[in-house]
Amino acid sequence: MKEWITGRNPVYEVLSAHHRDSFRVMVAEGAKVEGKLSQILELAKKYRLPVAKVSRKQLDQMGENHQGVALEAAGYNYSDIHEIIKAAQKREEPLFVLLLDMIQNPQNLGTLVRTAAAVGMHGIIIPQAKAAGVTPAVVHASVGSTEHIRIAQMNLSQAIDILHEEGLWIIGLEGGDGTQPVQPKHLGGPLGIVVGNEGEGLRQLTRKACDELAALPMSGQVESLNAATAGSVMIYLAYMKRLEMI
Amino acid sequence: MKEWITGRNPVYEVLSAHHRDSFRVMVAEGAKVEGKLSQILELAKKYRLPVAKVSRKQLDQMGENHQGVALEAAGYNYSDIHEIIKAAQKREEPLFVLLLDMIQNPQNLGTLVRTAAAVGMHGIIIPQAKAAGVTPAVVHASVGSTEHIRIAQMNLSQAIDILHEEGLWIIGLEGGDGTQPVQPKHLGGPLGIVVGNEGEGLRQLTRKACDELAALPMSGQVESLNAATAGSVMIYLAYMKRLEMI
Repeated sequence: MKEWITGRNPVYEVLSAHHRDSFRVMVAEGAKVEGKLSQILELAKKYRLPVAKVSRKQLDQMGENHQGVALEAAGYNYSDIHEIIKAAQKREEPLFVLLLDMIQNPQNLGTLVRTAAAVGMHGIIIPQAKAAGVTPAVVHASVGSTEHIRIAQMNLSQAIDILHEEGLWIIGLEGGDGTQPVQPKHLGGPLGIVVGNEGEGLRQLTRKACDELAALPMSGQVESLNAATAGSVMIYLAYMKRLEMI
Repeated sequence: MKEWITGRNPVYEVLSAHHRDSFRVMVAEGAKVEGKLSQILELAKKYRLPVAKVSRKQLDQMGENHQGVALEAAGYNYSDIHEIIKAAQKREEPLFVLLLDMIQNPQNLGTLVRTAAAVGMHGIIIPQAKAAGVTPAVVHASVGSTEHIRIAQMNLSQAIDILHEEGLWIIGLEGGDGTQPVQPKHLGGPLGIVVGNEGEGLRQLTRKACDELAALPMSGQVESLNAATAGSVMIYLAYMKRLEMI
């Protein structure tokens, strides 16, 4: 299925990563061709894509914050969990995977994808049903990072089974009281981090499949963090443990 | 100036923290009185606030995601930097402050406030001009955390001078290449963390006033993190250093 990607950075990343097919570019009449927009038009030329000038009003219908540019592209090109596992083997690194248990909000999904890509995680597993998929809104929120990391859509329990066979330690991030605070020494080696739903956290089945449940330490009167923020902090703790920085 | 706070958690937090005056509550006709909404109505009774039933259409005009409730309240009650310093003395803790150099996006400001409040930072300094203030959109994005932490609005260079006199180490978070990666051992003791603008990072004057510039380590093809995510990770590293967890 074709879809419209909007915004200068997202469009640039989809074109330059070339992880899926692109069909045509629309640019707002009167838009100054400089910076990212000029790079986009160079890539369009390279891939022989038609470029049309349209009114800003037309672009407004294609997506929020289009910044004068939209790209018609094929739907997101999902990976397979085995490709994620192979990517780690190829890089000769201990496998490092993010699992998202029912993240609903495209902004949160985009933020988590961006953080996972920033630290070079090998891939992300998201459920097939009842959760946000990699829609154009998520591509936008991730500023195009979706194109730079492998994302597989599959049943989470099955994914955890496969990852256990690969020797991964699966740590579930919990927000509530009564959960042990995260211990950085547990974050080295092959690792899967599971982040739960914004309101309800991890599902019961997912929770049971984890080797360990851990919370970020809290102080003060605020009950919880945003799921994307908490997940990003956990990803960074694990990444810095890998780098032996903590 | 009066303003409308919308959403169940934000309204509840503004009422329960009681850090500013509240005037009246509006509830959507037909809204089920349970959970947070019933707690809101109890607080309204306690503070003798009038409660009116209105149509959802009317609430739609007061703010996004109102969830059937709005509160008319006084504008945000800013603190003074000296109150922030005193708060740390009272708690007998080394001063721990967040300084925001021109954060523009209410969602990012809300996320940073929420993280700072979650780890019990003593306060936040934001500039007076050209940056987002604590508007109802920020209260909403912070899920009401704005009411649980002191926020002062003042010139950032002056704030850094005052904090230097208090013996604070001021660390500026940078995104770019060429910046030293953050060293957790530098994050103990009295600390100020400075987070820059979403697009342009720290201003030149702010950069010069910092004792150290540090970046989060990065890998892979993603150029940078969202300012709120990077700031939240840095806050957590410092907090976990304080707790001697890393």
